[in-house]
Amino acid sequence: MSRRYIVLAPRAFTSRAAKMAHGVIAYSSDTVVAVVDPALAGRRVRDVMPHLASDAPIVASFEEGMAFAPTALLVGIAPAGGKLPDDFRAAIRSALKARLEVVSGLHAMLNDDVEFAALAREHDTRIWDLRLPPAAPLFSGAAWDVKAKIVLTVGSDAAVGKMTAALELLRAARERGVDAAFVPTGQIGIAIAGWGTAIDRVVADFAPGAAEQLVLEGERRARELLFLEGQGGINNPAFAPVTLALLFGGAPDALVLVHNVARDRIEDYDVPILSYRALIRTYEGLCATVKPARVVGIALNTRDCSDDEAHAEIERARAETGLPCDDVVRNGPQALYDAIAPALVKTEVLHV
Amino acid sequence: MSRRYIVLAPRAFTSRAAKMAHGVIAYSSDTVVAVVDPALAGRRVRDVMPHLASDAPIVASFEEGMAFAPTALLVGIAPAGGKLPDDFRAAIRSALKARLEVVSGLHAMLNDDVEFAALAREHDTRIWDLRLPPAAPLFSGAAWDVKAKIVLTVGSDAAVGKMTAALELLRAARERGVDAAFVPTGQIGIAIAGWGTAIDRVVADFAPGAAEQLVLEGERRARELLFLEGQGGINNPAFAPVTLALLFGGAPDALVLVHNVARDRIEDYDVPILSYRALIRTYEGLCATVKPARVVGIALNTRDCSDDEAHAEIERARAETGLPCDDVVRNGPQALYDAIAPALVKTEVLHV
Repeated sequence: MSRRYIVLAPRAFTSRAAKMAHGVIAYSSDTVVAVVDPALAGRRVRDVMPHLASDAPIVASFEEGMAFAPTALLVGIAPAGGKLPDDFRAAIRSALKARLEVVSGLHAMLNDDVEFAALAREHDTRIWDLRLPPAAPLFSGAAWDVKAKIVLTVGSDAAVGKMTAALELLRAARERGVDAAFVPTGQIGIAIAGWGTAIDRVVADFAPGAAEQLVLEGERRARELLFLEGQGGINNPAFAPVTLALLFGGAPDALVLVHNVARDRIEDYDVPILSYRALIRTYEGLCATVKPARVVGIALNTRDCSDDEAHAEIERARAETGLPCDDVVRNGPQALYDAIAPALVKTEVLHV
Repeated sequence: MSRRYIVLAPRAFTSRAAKMAHGVIAYSSDTVVAVVDPALAGRRVRDVMPHLASDAPIVASFEEGMAFAPTALLVGIAPAGGKLPDDFRAAIRSALKARLEVVSGLHAMLNDDVEFAALAREHDTRIWDLRLPPAAPLFSGAAWDVKAKIVLTVGSDAAVGKMTAALELLRAARERGVDAAFVPTGQIGIAIAGWGTAIDRVVADFAPGAAEQLVLEGERRARELLFLEGQGGINNPAFAPVTLALLFGGAPDALVLVHNVARDRIEDYDVPILSYRALIRTYEGLCATVKPARVVGIALNTRDCSDDEAHAEIERARAETGLPCDDVVRNGPQALYDAIAPALVKTEVLHV
C-alpha cells in the first residue's frame, strides 16, 4: 500500500541537506501530504521549490501535519554530525505513538534506539532504517553473467545528480517500451524504489558483493536494462571506495557521466573536480582492468544556470568529449536516452 | 608484557591459509611456543617452513601445547567459509578456562559468541578480536598535513607480500637510524604490531577516515617515516575499494609496488594481473587526482622461483620500469631501501 508521508525538514527544506525530502517528493510513488518546516510554514512545496511541482502544504509542526492523515513519517534531512536533534526525537515519538511507520536514512539506526524500538513494539508499527544493510557475501563474479544491460551513473563528485539521471533515463527507456529497472544503492533511492542497499553502509570487504547482489536482484525485476545508481566520485577522497565498489561489483556495460556544472572543487575537500576527459579516462581505465565499459553519454546538472548558460555548458561538454550531452531535468531525458540507446544495444532484446 | 602464543593451524600450517601464523612467527615481538597441527606433529617450525627460522615445536593437540606454558592462543588460519570448526571451539574453550588470552583475526567476532564471552568473563581473561574496528570518522584531510613521509605498499593483487615488504623496509630504515614505524591495516599486521585497524572491516563510507586516523597515530609513533601496510589490489574486483581507501585516506607520499611473480591472474577471479607499467600508471594516476605520489620501487615476491629465475624476474622488472626492484625477503631489504630512500627525502629530517 502506498504511504502518505509527513516529511521532517525543520529550517532546512530548501537546503541541499534536505535532498531526501526532495528525492521522495520528485520520484516516489508514495505521496507526501505535508512537510514540517516552521521557517516556511503556510506555503506549499511548489512555492519554494517550483521544480518539485507538488502542492503539499508546509506546516510549522508535526502536530499540524497530522491533520493531513499521514501513514508514515520521513526524516527528510541529514542532521549535521549525524545526531538526531531533540525536535526530531519528539516528532518521532509522537509518530510512533500515532502508529505511523517511521522511515529514516540516517547512519544512526533508529531501531537501535531503545526508546524508539520500545515505542514501535508497543504501538505495533515499524521503523524502516533505509541504510541498514543486509549481510552481503564477497563478490563472486555472478554479476558478469547478468544478461540485462547495466548502465551505471558515475559522477564528477558526490551529490551532483547521479540518482536523478538514473531515474530520468529509466523513465525515458520505459517510454520506449524497454523492460527497465532502477537499482537503488543509497538511502534516497531506497526510499523511492522500496528496495536496495546503501552500499556506503556495507563493511568495505563486502561492498562489491552487495553491489553484485543488487544487479542480480535487478535482473529479476527487469529483463533488458538496469540503471544502477552511482555513488560518490572517483577522486572524492572520502567516498571513492564506494564508487569503486559499484564500478567493479555492479559490473556495468556502460557508464553515464554526471556533473554539476557549477562545481569545480570536490565538496568539503581542497581537491579539484577532474575535466570531462580525465573523468572518462579514469572511469574507463579502471573498468578496462576488470570488465570493459565506456562512457556513452554525459548528464549535466545545470540547475544554477540561466537557459543560455546551460546551453553553452552542454555544447562545451559535447565539444570536449564528442559524446551525447544534456540536462535530463531541464530538457527531459528522452533526447539523451535516444542518443545513448544504440550504444546499449548489444543484443536483440533492446527494441529501441 | 610479551605474549607466549600457542598457534592453532590444524592440517593447514604450511598452507597459504595459515598466513596469520606465518606472519606472527616471522615478525611479532611475541613468542610462538607451539603450533597445533596434527599432520605435522613431532617436527619443528623450521623443519617444514625453513624461512621462518623458528624452533617452536609442532604438536598434535592444544592439550600437548599447554606443556610449553603459553599465555595466549592465536587462531592461526582463516577457516573456509569463515565459520569456526568444532575443533577450534574446543581449543578456544580450553584456552579461556586456562586463562589464556584468545587472539583471532576472523571476520566473525569471538566476543560476539555467547559461550566464549561468558567463559572469558568467568575466567577473567580476554578475547582480542583483531578485526573489530573502532568507530571511525569521515576522512577530514588531516592526513595531508602529516609531516612524516608516508610510504604505502600497493599490490598487483591481494596476498602477494605487501605487509612483508612494509615490515622488511621498516627494518632497513631503522638500520639506517631513521625514526620509522609500521602502520598496520589488516589483522595479521595488527597481531604483529599490537595496534592498527582492519580497514576491510570498516563500513565503506568510513574506510578512508579510518586509514587517516592510522597515519595520524603513526606520526605520534615515529617522526620521520611511516610504512603503511597496503591491502588488496587496484583491479581485484572484491578488494579494490579497500585498496583505494588506503590510497586516498592514507595520503601516501610514495608507493612501493609489490608483486608475486608466480601470479598472472587475480586470485579467485578470471581477471588478469596488470603489467608493471599498467599498475604504476593506474596507481599514480589515481593518486594524482587527490595527492600526487609516485611508485619509487618494486618489491618482488620470488618465493616460488629458483635463484636464477628470481634474478631474471628482478632484472625484467627493472628493465620494464626503470625502477629499483628487489625481493626484500630473498635478498634482504637494505639494497631496495637504500635505492628508494633518496626519493623519500623531501625534507631535511631524513638523514639517510
